[in-house]
Formats: sequence, C-alpha cells, structure tokens
Amino acid sequence: MSTYFGIKEKAYKANMRLPELKLVLFTFGNASAADRDNRVFAIKPSGVPYDDLEPGDMVIVDFNGKVVEGSLRPSSDTLTHAALYKHWENVGGVVHTHSTYATAWAQSLTDLPILGTTHADHLAMDIPCTQPMADDKIEGDYEFETGMQIISEFRNREISHEDAGMILVGSHAPFTWGKSVDEAVYKSAVLEEVAKMASITKQIRPDAPKLKQTLIKKHFQRKHGKDAYYGQG
Amino acid sequence: MSTYFGIKEKAYKANMRLPELKLVLFTFGNASAADRDNRVFAIKPSGVPYDDLEPGDMVIVDFNGKVVEGSLRPSSDTLTHAALYKHWENVGGVVHTHSTYATAWAQSLTDLPILGTTHADHLAMDIPCTQPMADDKIEGDYEFETGMQIISEFRNREISHEDAGMILVGSHAPFTWGKSVDEAVYKSAVLEEVAKMASITKQIRPDAPKLKQTLIKKHFQRKHGKDAYYGQG
Amino acid sequence: MSTYFGIKEKAYKANMRLPELKLVLFTFGNASAADRDNRVFAIKPSGVPYDDLEPGDMVIVDFNGKVVEGSLRPSSDTLTHAALYKHWENVGGVVHTHSTYATAWAQSLTDLPILGTTHADHLAMDIPCTQPMADDKIEGDYEFETGMQIISEFRNREISHEDAGMILVGSHAPFTWGKSVDEAVYKSAVLEEVAKMASITKQIRPDAPKLKQTLIKKHFQRKHGKDAYYGQG
Amino acid sequence: MSTYFGIKEKAYKANMRLPELKLVLFTFGNASAADRDNRVFAIKPSGVPYDDLEPGDMVIVDFNGKVVEGSLRPSSDTLTHAALYKHWENVGGVVHTHSTYATAWAQSLTDLPILGTTHADHLAMDIPCTQPMADDKIEGDYEFETGMQIISEFRNREISHEDAGMILVGSHAPFTWGKSVDEAVYKSAVLEEVAKMASITKQIRPDAPKLKQTLIKKHFQRKHGKDAYYGQG
Repeated sequence: MSTYFGIKEKAYKANMRLPELKLVLFTFGNASAADRDNRVFAIKPSGVPYDDLEPGDMVIVDFNGKVVEGSLRPSSDTLTHAALYKHWENVGGVVHTHSTYATAWAQSLTDLPILGTTHADHLAMDIPCTQPMADDKIEGDYEFETGMQIISEFRNREISHEDAGMILVGSHAPFTWGKSVDEAVYKSAVLEEVAKMASITKQIRPDAPKLKQTLIKKHFQRKHGKDAYYGQG
Repeated sequence: MSTYFGIKEKAYKANMRLPELKLVLFTFGNASAADRDNRVFAIKPSGVPYDDLEPGDMVIVDFNGKVVEGSLRPSSDTLTHAALYKHWENVGGVVHTHSTYATAWAQSLTDLPILGTTHADHLAMDIPCTQPMADDKIEGDYEFETGMQIISEFRNREISHEDAGMILVGSHAPFTWGKSVDEAVYKSAVLEEVAKMASITKQIRPDAPKLKQTLIKKHFQRKHGKDAYYGQG
Repeated sequence: MSTYFGIKEKAYKANMRLPELKLVLFTFGNASAADRDNRVFAIKPSGVPYDDLEPGDMVIVDFNGKVVEGSLRPSSDTLTHAALYKHWENVGGVVHTHSTYATAWAQSLTDLPILGTTHADHLAMDIPCTQPMADDKIEGDYEFETGMQIISEFRNREISHEDAGMILVGSHAPFTWGKSVDEAVYKSAVLEEVAKMASITKQIRPDAPKLKQTLIKKHFQRKHGKDAYYGQG
Repeated sequence: MSTYFGIKEKAYKANMRLPELKLVLFTFGNASAADRDNRVFAIKPSGVPYDDLEPGDMVIVDFNGKVVEGSLRPSSDTLTHAALYKHWENVGGVVHTHSTYATAWAQSLTDLPILGTTHADHLAMDIPCTQPMADDKIEGDYEFETGMQIISEFRNREISHEDAGMILVGSHAPFTWGKSVDEAVYKSAVLEEVAKMASITKQIRPDAPKLKQTLIKKHFQRKHGKDAYYGQG
C-alpha cells in the first residue's frame, strides 16, 4: 500500500463531493490534499470522469510540481496547487471549481462585495478578484504563474490569505483552501452560495450597500474569534 | 425519557425539513419548538451537520435563554428565539434560515413588496425588512438585541406580528414563526418562493405595481378570515 | 364504485404530476378533468397535501359549480374551472398553478411576448395577461368572475382560447386547458419553461424583438396545422 | 439484427442523456449518430416521450434525408441533421436541444461572447448566433434550409465549424456536433453552462470585457492544441 494512502483517500473523497454539491460539471474542477511533513500532495488526474475515479488514481506530486507517484497525468492545474502549498504555511487542502455564480463574478473581473452576514460568517472582507495576468506570464509557465498571482494578490492588498480562504481568479474561476481539503470543499460551496446571493441582491438593488463594519466584525468573530461561540467548540 | 421529549421530536423533525426544502446549506439555519406552559423551547445545537442530528441532541432552553437540559451548546441564535417566545404570546415555533432569495432581499435592505396573490394568500402586507442595528447593540448582547429589534419593528410600524408571521432582518436573513414549528417551516418555504417570484417580477418589469388592496383583502381573507373557505376547515 | 371513477383517476394523476414537474409548492395548484357528457368534472380537494391525496378524494362538481359527489370541500378555485367548462366547448381539462416564472410574468401585468420557436411550437401569439379585475367583482363572486374574466379576455382580443390554451391572470398566476387534463398539465410545464426563457432573454437583451411572423406560422403549423409533420401523426 | 445496430444504440443512449443532463423538457431535442461509410445516420423518432424510447425505435436516414430503415417518422429536424452530415466531413454526431439559457441567447439574436476560460477551454471564439432566415426559405424546405444556413454562417464568417462545434440558430435554439454523438452531447451541456455563466456575468456587469486573446489561446491550446496537456493524452 502506498505511503500516501491517507492523502489519496482524502483527495478522492473531496473530489467526489464536488459534483454532489453541484460545484462542477463533468471534470471542471479539482481538489488536492497535502501531507505537509513530506511536502507532497495528492491530486485528481486530469480529465478523468468522476464516475470512473478511484482513490488509487490520485497522483502524488511534490511542492515543486514534480510527480512522485502515480501512472496518470495529474490535473492541468497542478502547478497552481503546488505554488500555494510551497509558499503558504498551514494549507492542507486546495480546491478549484468552475461553479456557476462564482465563475460569473470572476468573469465580471469584480471583487465580490460583502453584502450580508452569510458572507461575514466566513470571511470579513470582500472576496478578492484578480485582474488578468500579463501576456508574458500567460505564455510562460501559466499554471505556476496563476499560483504566484494568487499569492501576490494577497501580498499586494496586504490581506491575509488564511482569513480569506478563497479568491476569484479574474476571467477564470475560484480557488479555495484551508487546513484540510474538507475545509476547502466547504469554502467552495459557501463561495458559490454567497456569489449567488450577491448577484440576486445586485439585481434587486444595484446600489445595495456593503455590510456595516460592526456587523462584519461581530459575525466573523462569533465563528472565528478567540471567544467564538458558534459550533461545539 | 426527558419531560421534553415532545418538543425535542418536533424541533428535530422541523430542522430536518429545512435541507429537504432546500432552505439551508450545511448548518445555516435553525428551528425551535416551544412548550409554552413550561416556558421552554427545544432548539438545534450549534454547528452540528444535519446528517448527524438526532432528536435527543435538541437543547432545552428557557424563555430567558438559559439552558435547562442538554449537553450540547445551543444554536448561536438561541437568544433571538428566546426573546420572541418571551415577548409574544401564541408563538409555538420559530425558524431562521439563510434561504437564497429571501436573504438577497434582506441584503438589499428593502421591504419585500406584495406583488401578487401567492404573497397575499399568506400575508396582507409587504414583508418588513429591518434596517441595520445600532453599533452599541451589535457590540452588546447581539442575538438578544436581534430578537428585540424584530419585536420593535412590528411595534413601530403598528402591524401585527401574528398576521405577518415573518420578517427580513436587514443585512442578515429571514425569521418566521407560527403557532407550531411546522407552521414556521411552512412560512419559511413560502417566503423563499415569494422572494424568488418578486425578484423575477422586478427583473421583467422594474416598476411592477403592488397588488391592489381589494385583491390583497380577498386572498388573505379566503384563507385566513372568519369566513375562510380554503382548506378543509 | 363511483360512476365518476374515470375522471377521478385522471384528475388525481394530473394533480400528482404538478409537484413532479416542479410546478407547485405545497398545495399551490389544482387540476381538473371533465366528463363533458354528464357536464361534471373531478377536481382536487382544497388544501390537502399532495402526499395524502388519493383518487377517491377528488370531488365531483357540475358545470355550475355545485358539488355532486365527495365528502371534502373542492379547491377554492373550483368556480373558475366550472366557468371555463360551461362556456367553452371541447375543454376536457383545466390546470392552475403558481409556477415561479409564469407567476412572475402575471405579477408584471405584461403579456408574455413570443420570442422564439419554443413558444411558437405551442401557440402562435403572445400569451395574454389580464389586467386586475374591477373591485366589485373581486368583492363579489370572485372565483366565478375570474373564469368570466378569462373568457372575456379572449372575446375582447378576438383570439381563440383553443389556439392559446393558456392565460396569465394578472397579479395572480396561470391557467391552462386542453382536450384532456394531461394536455393541460403539459401546457402548464411548457408555459413555465417559455416564461423562464423569456425572462432570461429580456435580461440579456431588453429590446429583443418578437419572432418574425413567418417563423411563428411555420413552427405552429408544423406541429398543429392540417399538414403537421411533428410527432407520429 | 439491423446492419445499423451500432448507430441506433449510440443515438439511443445519446438521446437518453439529454433529459438526464436537464437539457430537454419533454421531447424538445434530438440527437443523431452517423455511419459515415454508409452515409446514413440514426435519429430519434418525432415526438416520442423519452420514457417510451427503445434503441430499435431510432430511424435510419441517408445524408439526403431519405428514410432507409424504421417504421416511425423521424425527428422533424431530420433534414437539418442530414445537411450537416452531407456537407461537413468528420461529423459523426449532431445534437439539437432547447436548453434554457442557450435558447435565451438564441432568442436575443446575439453572439454569445467569450467571457472566461470555461468557454475558452472548449472554443476559441464567440459562439455564433444566426440572424432569422429569409421568408422564402422559411416557407420553403425549412429544416433543410436551417442546415444550409448553419453551413453558410461558418463560411461567411470564415470560421471553422470544427473548431466551434456549436451554433445558436437565431430565434430558435442551439445545435452542436462532433466526431461522435457523445462529443455533441457533451458540447450541448457545455454550451448551456457557458450560456448561463454569460447571462449572470452580464447581469453583474453589463460591460464585462471579453477574455483577452492570450488567455483564449492558452486555454484552447492546452486542451486542443498539438501540445495539449489536458486529459490522459
């Protein structure tokens, strides 16, 4: 049995959750689970239908994007996952989907504004949307550059990628991450719901104001602050 | 067996209906059922996935929000439920969801206008939407203040909370109530449908007029008036 | 066994199709099947949940709206059905729903414009939407007047109710009819789909033109004309 | 057993996938599979409910639209399929649906703009939408002319029908094609998803820019170019 059985199993289950949660059509998404001690992660193979996937199909890749174990070609987005694991501590799972509403916001090249408490229960800021990449990077090592673009976006905006847990890659689609791949899947579903609510809100009232700062703080803190009282502690 | 077996069972079943009716994602909602004679209610524990819930997990809380029975932490919105039970006679059940369209209206900080008979079959007024709470209350006993804000909204507008059965808490999401928790669940589903119809109506015709007063009265009375002739009487 | 077993069975099955086709929430709809020789129809009882319905629960009513057989109270919309059966030859089934998109068009008090061939495959005209009824009729025999309003609308516009097969009652919701109740159910589903397509078309391009007359004629005739070549003849 | 058992089976399975993928309501769609060596194709019979279809019901038609085998009348759109097979090499399957969002774009008589990478992963251009046909052609051999109109559209725009794989027939609905009928079904589902994303994007930001040329090229090439690295090669 592979040394990496644990993360293969986690990555497999997380990938299978994506169509169940209606976050992917066909193979339009990928989830990975990291073993940070060994600096490797398990990721879905590229273009294999979900119905045919098995845990053993997951490909083991190191944080530089080199395949360590597995006979299938890994997801075409593998280098993006690798860049995030390499540069960010504490990230144990990454998910990429083309979920409908989150992708529409990414296509609009607009930050997803924080309009209500459903959003603030999960992150205390607008969900950042990157602008399109420079041509030389697109034509260069594109997927690796996508990872570096995500990392730079948080650095340039001086916001915490850990507090955000998600980003919209402009013109493309969302990425989410967390301590575990299950947390990243959860955030992908939350993002899609928040994106849908925001688009309907904008349709009802185009100038709907952002959530006031005290409510942002209250809702985020009651779930994530040091005195959090949501959940079973 | 707990003295409160009856309301635990009712609250459990009502909570389980919320994902079935597609009114909640993950744990984004809570339903409670009251025993008004004993001035207690049963409510969902905080943050427990619906798949793992059992009737015995429901927490028994008194109308001041104090836990009376149960080993789990009650829903983070417990004090809002408690305030409604304490101040309003005849309320036997309360439901809170973040259902998509109703939440979008709450985020738009706009009363949901009465545009058709589907709405008037259930309430004879616009569905009120509160404005955001004052900062000192948000930073104070927030969930209790949310309950008090709901109560004040009806008092200030001089409309009946019993006739309305529902409210949109601005920037947040809906609450509904009724003589039983089943009635409150029913109203949450009606509200979501009416909210969806209203947003589509506004998209088709932004200046769609409100339902005329005679039709409001006719539809509300035929279901709820003293000579109601809807249902099996 | 009831003389009316045949129409009870037909009405029952038609009513059960409505939630399956996602055209009704809870009890927000009703279907009836007529026995024109005996000038009676079978209709759903008022306010009974679909899960509890049985064929024997259907109520037999004559074309003047008088209950002929059945222990339950018939649908509150019974007199509307009765008026249509009484005044229109060849109608064997009537369906009323509050399906989401069709109801939103009814709430917008706007005819549903013929924008494409999906619409023209079924009717060669805009789907008429009535304006709200006069107050004295609303306060009078409302459900009967709703039927008379539908009948007048076709007479006043000088269009054929048989060719249309459906109407939007302004501020309220759609009614459909056909030679059989199955045909009326089919038209309710078509109407909801056409209404959804039209609202999205208007969102994409608010000034989208109507379908040109030659295409309307071609599509309607190939399904319904004397030389129709759609289906198995 | 019919010589054409293979294509009947393929066409049958493809037709059955359409309601599963929620691309057709009732019988509003048709899929065909070609045997190019024998210059025939198998297509769904006209107006037969999906639940009643069997592989043996598929009708065998030659590339001029003449029925070669089968007792049922073929789809009313058969001559459109025939025209595409006759004039285009390498097409092994054709699918026509009235899927909701793609049809709404067709009704808007607007090319579906390339707004993101989900689109560019499949085709490197806007999805063309034809303008309504001239009256004499509508009144003539309409379905054959629809095929010829599709063929002319690609010729006139000087774009490749093989690279596109899909078109919106203005005021009507989409057609898709591919080397196999399975590929054509896949493209119908992709088109519907891309159409939905584009309509939401336009709602969020009416002036959302098109995807930049370098990203179009990158995404299309990584899936379809000579050095493609998506999938298992």
